[in-house]
Amino acid sequence: MIANPIPWPGGARCAVAMTWDMDADSAFNWYNKDTADTLVAAQSWTRYDPLIAIPRLVEQFARRELRLTFFVPGWVIEKYPAQIDLLATHGHEIGLHGYLHERSNEIGEDDELYWFGRGLDAYKRHLGKGPRGWRAPSFAFSKHSLRVLLDTGIEYDSSLMGDDIPYALREAGGNRSLLEFPTDWTLDDFPHYAHNRDLGYRMPISAPLRAMEVFRSEFDAAWEFGGLWISVWHPALSGRLARFKAALELLDYMRDKGGVWFARLDQICDHVQQLIAAGRWTPRVETLPIYDSPLPEFSRTG
Amino acid sequence: MIANPIPWPGGARCAVAMTWDMDADSAFNWYNKDTADTLVAAQSWTRYDPLIAIPRLVEQFARRELRLTFFVPGWVIEKYPAQIDLLATHGHEIGLHGYLHERSNEIGEDDELYWFGRGLDAYKRHLGKGPRGWRAPSFAFSKHSLRVLLDTGIEYDSSLMGDDIPYALREAGGNRSLLEFPTDWTLDDFPHYAHNRDLGYRMPISAPLRAMEVFRSEFDAAWEFGGLWISVWHPALSGRLARFKAALELLDYMRDKGGVWFARLDQICDHVQQLIAAGRWTPRVETLPIYDSPLPEFSRTG
Amino acid sequence: MIANPIPWPGGARCAVAMTWDMDADSAFNWYNKDTADTLVAAQSWTRYDPLIAIPRLVEQFARRELRLTFFVPGWVIEKYPAQIDLLATHGHEIGLHGYLHERSNEIGEDDELYWFGRGLDAYKRHLGKGPRGWRAPSFAFSKHSLRVLLDTGIEYDSSLMGDDIPYALREAGGNRSLLEFPTDWTLDDFPHYAHNRDLGYRMPISAPLRAMEVFRSEFDAAWEFGGLWISVWHPALSGRLARFKAALELLDYMRDKGGVWFARLDQICDHVQQLIAAGRWTPRVETLPIYDSPLPEFSRTG
Amino acid sequence: MIANPIPWPGGARCAVAMTWDMDADSAFNWYNKDTADTLVAAQSWTRYDPLIAIPRLVEQFARRELRLTFFVPGWVIEKYPAQIDLLATHGHEIGLHGYLHERSNEIGEDDELYWFGRGLDAYKRHLGKGPRGWRAPSFAFSKHSLRVLLDTGIEYDSSLMGDDIPYALREAGGNRSLLEFPTDWTLDDFPHYAHNRDLGYRMPISAPLRAMEVFRSEFDAAWEFGGLWISVWHPALSGRLARFKAALELLDYMRDKGGVWFARLDQICDHVQQLIAAGRWTPRVETLPIYDSPLPEFSRTG
Repeated sequence: MIANPIPWPGGARCAVAMTWDMDADSAFNWYNKDTADTLVAAQSWTRYDPLIAIPRLVEQFARRELRLTFFVPGWVIEKYPAQIDLLATHGHEIGLHGYLHERSNEIGEDDELYWFGRGLDAYKRHLGKGPRGWRAPSFAFSKHSLRVLLDTGIEYDSSLMGDDIPYALREAGGNRSLLEFPTDWTLDDFPHYAHNRDLGYRMPISAPLRAMEVFRSEFDAAWEFGGLWISVWHPALSGRLARFKAALELLDYMRDKGGVWFARLDQICDHVQQLIAAGRWTPRVETLPIYDSPLPEFSRTG
Repeated sequence: MIANPIPWPGGARCAVAMTWDMDADSAFNWYNKDTADTLVAAQSWTRYDPLIAIPRLVEQFARRELRLTFFVPGWVIEKYPAQIDLLATHGHEIGLHGYLHERSNEIGEDDELYWFGRGLDAYKRHLGKGPRGWRAPSFAFSKHSLRVLLDTGIEYDSSLMGDDIPYALREAGGNRSLLEFPTDWTLDDFPHYAHNRDLGYRMPISAPLRAMEVFRSEFDAAWEFGGLWISVWHPALSGRLARFKAALELLDYMRDKGGVWFARLDQICDHVQQLIAAGRWTPRVETLPIYDSPLPEFSRTG
Repeated sequence: MIANPIPWPGGARCAVAMTWDMDADSAFNWYNKDTADTLVAAQSWTRYDPLIAIPRLVEQFARRELRLTFFVPGWVIEKYPAQIDLLATHGHEIGLHGYLHERSNEIGEDDELYWFGRGLDAYKRHLGKGPRGWRAPSFAFSKHSLRVLLDTGIEYDSSLMGDDIPYALREAGGNRSLLEFPTDWTLDDFPHYAHNRDLGYRMPISAPLRAMEVFRSEFDAAWEFGGLWISVWHPALSGRLARFKAALELLDYMRDKGGVWFARLDQICDHVQQLIAAGRWTPRVETLPIYDSPLPEFSRTG
Repeated sequence: MIANPIPWPGGARCAVAMTWDMDADSAFNWYNKDTADTLVAAQSWTRYDPLIAIPRLVEQFARRELRLTFFVPGWVIEKYPAQIDLLATHGHEIGLHGYLHERSNEIGEDDELYWFGRGLDAYKRHLGKGPRGWRAPSFAFSKHSLRVLLDTGIEYDSSLMGDDIPYALREAGGNRSLLEFPTDWTLDDFPHYAHNRDLGYRMPISAPLRAMEVFRSEFDAAWEFGGLWISVWHPALSGRLARFKAALELLDYMRDKGGVWFARLDQICDHVQQLIAAGRWTPRVETLPIYDSPLPEFSRTG
């Protein structure tokens, strides 16, 4: 089922990276620039993330000796430094996730650079070094993003959805590349749990056991076929009591099934880099940009 | 799982406040100011609340000796006084819920004050005293709302979503505060049951047993970890026969599980105030406003 | 649970009126006036109703000796007369459902009268007499509709949602009234089955067994408490093979449960009229209009 | 249940054509003409189809000795020729699916002809002959499409939804016709699996086992009543690991149930043409256009 199977450490059948996007109130502000200051319920809903969920997650993962990857916008690092320290001292990886959860593919190149730079500065200022990994806020990876990441020395991205296992993103016309650890909307928790007028979601809310049917089916398939399972969960959603309880039960299920490599993305990055260096495995390469411009076919001269 | 656990009376494991927002035809009028007079099916759908559901709820809760909190807009108090009396004489608490279900964070401060005042007047005129509790219609708590509530002597709010247990909202630069009894969209019945063109909901409708999976999972987690379960149900939705039957079965489930403190929010308010006064428990404090203005970061000078 | 219980014939516990809105391609044309002629897939999807589903329904209901109520727009009567004859000769009731599935509460009074008149003419021309019952297309009963219906001698309406059992609609300032047989969005099949760009539905599609959980829970509640179960199903949706199979199984379930009065709405009308005439039961009365105009409160002088 | 039952080969109870629309990144470009070049996550999400899913499908169907029908836009043929060859050499049928997944009923007749011609050229250039079958992208079959298809010698269409078994589309005022193999939105995988901002889908995502409840219920009904089951699946959705695993399990279920004719649409076309030629079965005929123009009734002179 997987054309180019990757060997996981210790003969594990699959890799599980339960990653979290700690957006706090950044995304909500980005989407409601002019009114966010008066949307107090949404403020409280999004601040549940750093104030309530993050300490909970840290405590529970410590009990299970799990170290995970959290993607955090620079503005959130500045605003909630204690939570970042808590994550870091417990061995969790902090990946960069923009500055104010900007949607890079909806702003111009200059603006993308501006916000990226601000996010990077905030990260370095607080953590003392740059991040190894990046996830574009809202998955809004633009046609400029790869170059920006490469210029900064970012080693991996986890914003795209083009495979079931790691692959490489290469810059067209150059030799530079980085690793892509793909996910899919299916493993995001918004489609299952989000109902919030202020965030533009007016959808049914799934029970945790129904959402877990989705996440578990993805895990079972990864386990059977050798894939990489990367959740994109949000503390404001999946960190709430009933859902987090179900998430812990899913972790138990995974652990009991056996043969699972639980890893941070930087550990997966190390592993894949070593495989490549040792010539033991070669990633599929996707060269960006896919298109140089909007399709010329639409002008009917293409 | 809960960082600052609160002792519930009698050693109860959790508190359950099945609260109802008795909107009747107020919200529907607010959202359809110019056409509501000719949307007769929506009128009937929303008036099911006071005319059919409220007597039903009162009767059934009386049989179970349950006294609950109902949030009611002032206009609804004026329009359906008999139902308000019915609720009050059966020991239910009436909280204030605006005047015409206005969305306070979409109108200016003056308008917020105007409608709040009208709601408060209607409440006092009919009930002889002011309310102890408030829920902002549509959860649309604005940056001015806390001050408005404090000026009025409201003791608690139940519009925000920032915790699993009570916390306090303090006015910045002052000493005044009130209690917050938080809920979440997950415990609202609209995401599960609402499909109504005139109210802008075009979503699938869940079977009662599926919606109850959600509400019950929240209860089970509150029970396990010591939380506060506050439903935000609407008589026009959850007061219909099949759903209310399922709601009663959920109540039975809760009661059978044991260790549950069923309470009105004013009773929870008393309990929490006493805990604080006795120094037995200190709430987490959220100081409002969170932001003074739209984020200055967007001007790129912040 | 029902405040004003109605005695059903033969001591039945509840009444079941499986009604169908045979819209065919009328509603689709109404919503896409300028483009419907080129939306061929939607044409085929909506014409499945008269061409495929109606003969199927007639055959299967004949086998079960069930006679039901079908609401049909006048334009559909003109366009598919053979299907109307098929329904009529098998004992099904034909209720009127507008002319072109017009939304009466979105057009002015003159337009409402125009389309109503055209629908009535089409009905009388084909069926030789006027209809006893009416359902407003899209439940879009306007503030003028009651007068229009009363002027025409319509005996019952089934467009509103204000109760679980029959009630009466009385004209303000007069003595004229007719019976209302209410339903609810929950018993409509669109929220469960509709996904069609051309009709503006972009929602998940439920499996028949999941939709039946909803319809059956409503039935079980009606059965337990003495209600009136009125489905609002569409042959283009619920007449498809898998769904209709599930609908027939639901009918079997109802029949096996016992104590169910399966009836057409005209039979229910007869029954209720006789109860009233005999003084055995008095319906709750809703006087229309509920409001004379948009609420004066919005002008702040009200 | 089926008025005009069709004899399937070898006495099979039903026919199953698991068809796939291999859109790759064409539809996404059509819907985002000006921005698609910078929506890199959506690029990766849609390119999963040709790069990952197509080889997987080919391999798995070969193991099961299944040969299926894939509808492919001309632009996708040009862009991913190796995948087209892979499909063709494994015995899969390639049907035409436009050029750039254009919505023919939203563009004028000239544009429809332009894009159709380009699609046809791309098809012929790569495959050496024209296609026997067509599915309109997005089911957007226009009032001009039948003539376009007949002029080209297309033998069957599979874009409409007007029956449970094959039928014929005849040109008004002429003798020309082709076969229609209908499907329904219910058998499309978008309503069940699509959540993607860039494609305009903001809906819950079903677990594979829940989506399969829908697809299987349609199969069970087709099996019971003699229907034709045609899935409209997309490799970018249903070709992902967990969903494809469930799809293979559905195939096993179908095979184990017995009496199923698994076929490509061209084989069904052969079969139906032979039935007709032999006088063994006559299809229902739908004559197009259904309407010559927008309904004249709207001008109130009709």
